[in-house]
Amino acid sequence: MKPINVGIIGLGVVGGGTAQVLRENADEISRRLGRDVRVTMVSRRDIAKAQEIIGTDDTITITTDAAEIVNHPDIDIVVELIGGTTIAKDMVLQAIANGKHVVTANKKLLAEHGNEIFAAAAAKNVMVMFEAAVAGGIPIIKSLREGLAANKIEWIAGIINGTSNFILSEMRSKGSDFADVLKEAQAKGYAEADPTFDIEGHDAGHKITIMSSVAFGVPLDFSKCYLEGISTLEGKDIQYAEELGYRVKLLGITRRREDGVELRVHPTLIPQERLIANVDGVMNAVLVKADMVGVTMHYGPGAGSLPTASSVVADILDICRLIDSEAEQRVPYLAFQPHHVQTLPAISIDDIRSSYYLRLTTTDEPGVLAAVTSMLAQHSISVEALIQKATAHEEAEIVILTHSALERDMKEAIARIEDLNRVTKPVVMLRMEPFNG
Amino acid sequence: MKPINVGIIGLGVVGGGTAQVLRENADEISRRLGRDVRVTMVSRRDIAKAQEIIGTDDTITITTDAAEIVNHPDIDIVVELIGGTTIAKDMVLQAIANGKHVVTANKKLLAEHGNEIFAAAAAKNVMVMFEAAVAGGIPIIKSLREGLAANKIEWIAGIINGTSNFILSEMRSKGSDFADVLKEAQAKGYAEADPTFDIEGHDAGHKITIMSSVAFGVPLDFSKCYLEGISTLEGKDIQYAEELGYRVKLLGITRRREDGVELRVHPTLIPQERLIANVDGVMNAVLVKADMVGVTMHYGPGAGSLPTASSVVADILDICRLIDSEAEQRVPYLAFQPHHVQTLPAISIDDIRSSYYLRLTTTDEPGVLAAVTSMLAQHSISVEALIQKATAHEEAEIVILTHSALERDMKEAIARIEDLNRVTKPVVMLRMEPFNG
Repeated sequence: MKPINVGIIGLGVVGGGTAQVLRENADEISRRLGRDVRVTMVSRRDIAKAQEIIGTDDTITITTDAAEIVNHPDIDIVVELIGGTTIAKDMVLQAIANGKHVVTANKKLLAEHGNEIFAAAAAKNVMVMFEAAVAGGIPIIKSLREGLAANKIEWIAGIINGTSNFILSEMRSKGSDFADVLKEAQAKGYAEADPTFDIEGHDAGHKITIMSSVAFGVPLDFSKCYLEGISTLEGKDIQYAEELGYRVKLLGITRRREDGVELRVHPTLIPQERLIANVDGVMNAVLVKADMVGVTMHYGPGAGSLPTASSVVADILDICRLIDSEAEQRVPYLAFQPHHVQTLPAISIDDIRSSYYLRLTTTDEPGVLAAVTSMLAQHSISVEALIQKATAHEEAEIVILTHSALERDMKEAIARIEDLNRVTKPVVMLRMEPFNG
Repeated sequence: MKPINVGIIGLGVVGGGTAQVLRENADEISRRLGRDVRVTMVSRRDIAKAQEIIGTDDTITITTDAAEIVNHPDIDIVVELIGGTTIAKDMVLQAIANGKHVVTANKKLLAEHGNEIFAAAAAKNVMVMFEAAVAGGIPIIKSLREGLAANKIEWIAGIINGTSNFILSEMRSKGSDFADVLKEAQAKGYAEADPTFDIEGHDAGHKITIMSSVAFGVPLDFSKCYLEGISTLEGKDIQYAEELGYRVKLLGITRRREDGVELRVHPTLIPQERLIANVDGVMNAVLVKADMVGVTMHYGPGAGSLPTASSVVADILDICRLIDSEAEQRVPYLAFQPHHVQTLPAISIDDIRSSYYLRLTTTDEPGVLAAVTSMLAQHSISVEALIQKATAHEEAEIVILTHSALERDMKEAIARIEDLNRVTKPVVMLRMEPFNG
């Protein structure tokens, strides 16, 4: 069979990894596929940098113009690694219009414009694959779309942002503050100079949006995702959580309920004895609860040149096998047949149920605890665990772990508690997920 | 598109689960697949028991004769759940000869006769799928064959026998002895009346043999698998391991080396801080080390009616999509093109390198430790950690953890140590794997 020609647009860290994987494992890939796959064109604005990555391989054409690749008649598969939603979107749509198959690692593009892209791809009968967009080297999209396809998936919860997980792991193990660990992460290259996208939950939000869609067969809609990051987390909350037997992780969570779909990213307490509570550093892990299989966990490196390239190339191999297939022979873009992808109501964060961690700063005098717990009781919220400690300045801290409650009730109770004149600062509230099956 | 007709031969726990999944999730499956899948025939020797499982569904024909199903012109896919290697093998080969696709959960059949079965299937251009044969509901075969296909896989290590893992978990947490926990496991239905197959490593051996083949593209050959079970493990070794910072797990391990393939099952010490060391009870987990992605871990239920059925049905869906495809559009049986599946030398257990845990029973007098450690040094084996304890009866126990050594050297050193007249019992030897990347 004739070789498959791949063009990479946006040749950077992952693109270089993709070229490396296809070159170094060419024999192993041919053994698997029964045909050769080769990178024949790459693009990057800065041609010197592209040359640096590609080296002396003169079988690869380097161009500054991505359009040259998506319009080239010899290219079978376009790998989009430009990032963002402007040029990347234009190029992906142009590649599709030209009848080319697409592999992308661009979570933002899919989470925000995926429906449009998949509709265009369906019209041209081409594949658009995106394993590398979620959790780097972990084959979680394949597991959700295929491996667990016998199931109704109930919920997904994932550590899907390595930067945040590194920061939280360091805050816990070293007792450091957020700002110090962020600087360390930046020095190590685990965090960007502007870390907003990672630490405020946008990146995790894009990824959980994509997983939600392939798990439940709902259109991609990042605007429905509730986002709460880790930048305001204090070291003391991580330590209190630890005392109570919990770890704090930034989780992307999505859940199918009878009345709609939850889609949210926020710091979350998890019992220490759960495997996912012990996923540290830049590693990723995704828990999936499905009706027939129960809970599975999928763990591995969530970023990096070669792990991400591993997913890009796996997608390329899937496309190669089915390059001459009909649509019904392929797994649908969002795992469900396009006409069965249906919008479900987005559930507001106020309508979720969760357990809650609260930290109150109060004056150190009798009666505060009674007032607080009676306020909780008035909102039907019961207490599972409680720590009270005197601090400096004649203040006390009360840390409360509640049983499951409706978030709306919780927030109302907190508003009342903050009205107490013995409560001197805003209440810190974090959510807790037990993950007990 | 017309519905796909499935026949289940050997309707038992997993078969009942398969029928249940296809029935209860019929809508979700049609949403995914764009066509219906239905069980139309089932077989079991005891027809009353089959009737009990199927209930009042009169769209399903029940027969005592599996051959009736594999020869029936309306059956598209045969699900083989008879088990064993006699009738099951005949029926699978007959189904293939009749041009039917096959899904099987029969690890023994594949590990021992897989090459013959796949050759027959290739000749008739039918698919034979076996996700359920390894690690129950975890989609590990799909991850190895497809999700990680960009990689050269280097090694796999898995907790792939739930019975053994339950026993080891209980021995550790309760400090109980093997025999007592086995009885408990039997009472709970986690262990068979005759538990040999599980506790002596045969079951794990079949599974690691299959994973080895799809990871490295080598023919299936269970006879090359080294087997060492858990029935002779003493509670005290689990406690000593704990003291040293390790957990004991029954692992299936396979590794590709320049000079061949390691394939082995044995109890193994793992550092407590590794995720896989914390996989307890009947759960399974498979660690995969691959050259590009690094380490991934795949965790979930390794047995049970519905988890196993989840994998059976995922295979059915894969077959449905590609039922009219050509061979080159499919993932090859053992992940590599049949003419690229090549035998590699089987590496003897004596030629592996590992760290070792040794427990010596000695007389309680000066000089023993010096004699023992000098014996190790003579065989170039260095000591990483050591515990010495006096026991009753004027004896002492010495527990040693070594650095990496060749097993042949280790065994020679042990033979010399056992020759010392102050060493009063055979030396207990266990292997340790650090799994540090």
